[in-house]
Amino acid sequence: MILGICGSPRRANSEYLLDVALESAQNATGVSTERILLRKEQFMFCSGCFKCTNENENEYGCQVHRDVMDDIFLKLKACRGLILSSPVYFGGVTAQLKAFMDRTEPLLRYAKGPWRLTLRDKVGGAIAVGGNRNGGQETTIQAIHHFFFIHDMLVVGVGPDEQPGCYLGAAAFSGQDPEKGSKVLKAVKGDELGLRSARILGRRVAEVVDKLS
Amino acid sequence: MILGICGSPRRANSEYLLDVALESAQNATGVSTERILLRKEQFMFCSGCFKCTNENENEYGCQVHRDVMDDIFLKLKACRGLILSSPVYFGGVTAQLKAFMDRTEPLLRYAKGPWRLTLRDKVGGAIAVGGNRNGGQETTIQAIHHFFFIHDMLVVGVGPDEQPGCYLGAAAFSGQDPEKGSKVLKAVKGDELGLRSARILGRRVAEVVDKLS
Amino acid sequence: MILGICGSPRRANSEYLLDVALESAQNATGVSTERILLRKEQFMFCSGCFKCTNENENEYGCQVHRDVMDDIFLKLKACRGLILSSPVYFGGVTAQLKAFMDRTEPLLRYAKGPWRLTLRDKVGGAIAVGGNRNGGQETTIQAIHHFFFIHDMLVVGVGPDEQPGCYLGAAAFSGQDPEKGSKVLKAVKGDELGLRSARILGRRVAEVVDKLS
Amino acid sequence: MILGICGSPRRANSEYLLDVALESAQNATGVSTERILLRKEQFMFCSGCFKCTNENENEYGCQVHRDVMDDIFLKLKACRGLILSSPVYFGGVTAQLKAFMDRTEPLLRYAKGPWRLTLRDKVGGAIAVGGNRNGGQETTIQAIHHFFFIHDMLVVGVGPDEQPGCYLGAAAFSGQDPEKGSKVLKAVKGDELGLRSARILGRRVAEVVDKLS
Repeated sequence: MILGICGSPRRANSEYLLDVALESAQNATGVSTERILLRKEQFMFCSGCFKCTNENENEYGCQVHRDVMDDIFLKLKACRGLILSSPVYFGGVTAQLKAFMDRTEPLLRYAKGPWRLTLRDKVGGAIAVGGNRNGGQETTIQAIHHFFFIHDMLVVGVGPDEQPGCYLGAAAFSGQDPEKGSKVLKAVKGDELGLRSARILGRRVAEVVDKLS
Repeated sequence: MILGICGSPRRANSEYLLDVALESAQNATGVSTERILLRKEQFMFCSGCFKCTNENENEYGCQVHRDVMDDIFLKLKACRGLILSSPVYFGGVTAQLKAFMDRTEPLLRYAKGPWRLTLRDKVGGAIAVGGNRNGGQETTIQAIHHFFFIHDMLVVGVGPDEQPGCYLGAAAFSGQDPEKGSKVLKAVKGDELGLRSARILGRRVAEVVDKLS
Repeated sequence: MILGICGSPRRANSEYLLDVALESAQNATGVSTERILLRKEQFMFCSGCFKCTNENENEYGCQVHRDVMDDIFLKLKACRGLILSSPVYFGGVTAQLKAFMDRTEPLLRYAKGPWRLTLRDKVGGAIAVGGNRNGGQETTIQAIHHFFFIHDMLVVGVGPDEQPGCYLGAAAFSGQDPEKGSKVLKAVKGDELGLRSARILGRRVAEVVDKLS
Repeated sequence: MILGICGSPRRANSEYLLDVALESAQNATGVSTERILLRKEQFMFCSGCFKCTNENENEYGCQVHRDVMDDIFLKLKACRGLILSSPVYFGGVTAQLKAFMDRTEPLLRYAKGPWRLTLRDKVGGAIAVGGNRNGGQETTIQAIHHFFFIHDMLVVGVGPDEQPGCYLGAAAFSGQDPEKGSKVLKAVKGDELGLRSARILGRRVAEVVDKLS
């Protein structure tokens, strides 16, 4: 299963592109896909207590917060590929997606229990949608990649397409139609280059997942 | 006034380093300093509604959330230099600091009212503390710089010290004392290089603020 | 004087954009401009000998190579603003521009003689042109900014334009006309967003130079 | 075979660390290793002519320069893993390593002949040695990763070691012994954290190469 997580607070472009990427992954190799939309979830910030790196007192990854992250951890354990998608907010992922990232501390090398290294050797790909053309898409993708590297994942770009638009991952631009404005829901529907980059990213993640099976 | 904002959920290293930097700034030029500790504050995520970029319906920057960000905006308007400090969480700033960043949308070029371009031409410097030696300090500083650039600020590094430790900003390492462990409060007290980088960053911000007066 | 340096091996897009930025700088404040085209120059790689950081045995910055870099150092000393422009090669500046960067070691804090801190407090801006839309422009600009920070310069983005295209600097895309292909000389002439980003970058550098006078 | 390429102009720290990484790779899985030291080679800059992306007129990758890059291309074709090592020069790889990178254009998706996609699906790891502690190691590793992504490689960090020092790749610090100074040959011999990061990077590259066989 390939899991997609969208960090947008809105039902908009980065969610649409995640769907495009997941559909492309499924079409490429028949892999099943699931998605988590953070706009529908509520969970606590990581409080930086590092209790998850000590001997666990309970069966959960996080030793202090009981919330939807417990369910998300199960999905992260089950997946073989992971695609994170975010609108670009101030050159990086949304605070919502960052809050998710910060809460995955129990899945790292530092943990002691069964959640340790949950994401190791899984395949990671990134999607970013900016309101400006070169408006932080690449730095957002690098930030997502950094998360993948810390989790010891295998990080992939977009594959061998001849005009990939972006090499690092899927990059789209929601502000290009001056008639419609940059804030319209699913403005990226008109961004052919961005749509293609989502498709080739999804396929690339699926193919590397297959290669590793 | 130079304003420091700390994004840590804990009273720990990045807060201590921010204090070191602010004290150094004050010593350098006599400038006054203030600080905001996000661990003491509660505020909403930006919901990406972009109402702040339309004609404002109320006097506030954010058109929808009434919380402590209104007060923080006043401090941002009053300051002439801004230092952001964060522990490194997954290669970047904490979700808490990112949530602050995302909420500053009403201060950008896109706004219509009196909050537009609040931070323009102010001087920005960055501090990052990692639990590993090369554990994301530089990428965290770049993420903070990106925020500064989007606000049209003047971004500075650490000045002409001969062994700056880090050129981009103040970078410290909280995990270097194997006796005390990496999680002890103020572990950076033993990190001479990190402490010095905070001092020279504070001085550099203060001196450029002065130069621009 | 604002100095522009282009790192392209060809007379092409990044050179054209540099001209656009320099003209915009001159129009904004009347500042004079000069440019250096690295494609016309031959110079040695830095050999990493660090002799420039010891007591100087000769009057030059570099203690070992006598080439055009001696003249370029004079221009770097004379300028008050510096704009570096590069096509994106493998996500970063060209090797030619990097070779220039590496040779500026004698102008750093580590030098002993009159060339020490030559670029300190000068204003820096960056231009990148990619063959793909999100094809490394932002990482190339960050690489140029890193060079500026190491030289203790004041680093600026593009100013308060409402649709800047890129916040970090001028970013253009040479491959957008499928009829003409991405390799045509001055393909960026048709990239309105890229051209505007060069204009607003040039103006921003000039205005901050003025502010500091 | 895992290939290591060192971009230093000197026989020094980054070369030593590359040896450490390659030895660790060999010890991990028995894979053979080879290395190329760019300080011993002379080759032309890429001139940006893009002839390698047209129908090839000769059997070589590069259609214009006949130099040692032809031999290096054979090694790149033969290897299954690739480790690039560089001292940090101005926040990035040396101009020498960048010149190597730029010359690999004929191995990309854009080429027409037998050299197309030479590096696809091979495993990449990065090593950086800085003269300052947080002196550009991470940005240098990101620059190398960007090169890997453009070549459609699988990019890995350092594996599950509990105190990796750096997650993105091997990061060392040559300037930490104030007695010996930062410029002594093999100063990194005293940098236990850096040495370990090279060992775990080498092992990680070897293990992923194995996993893909």
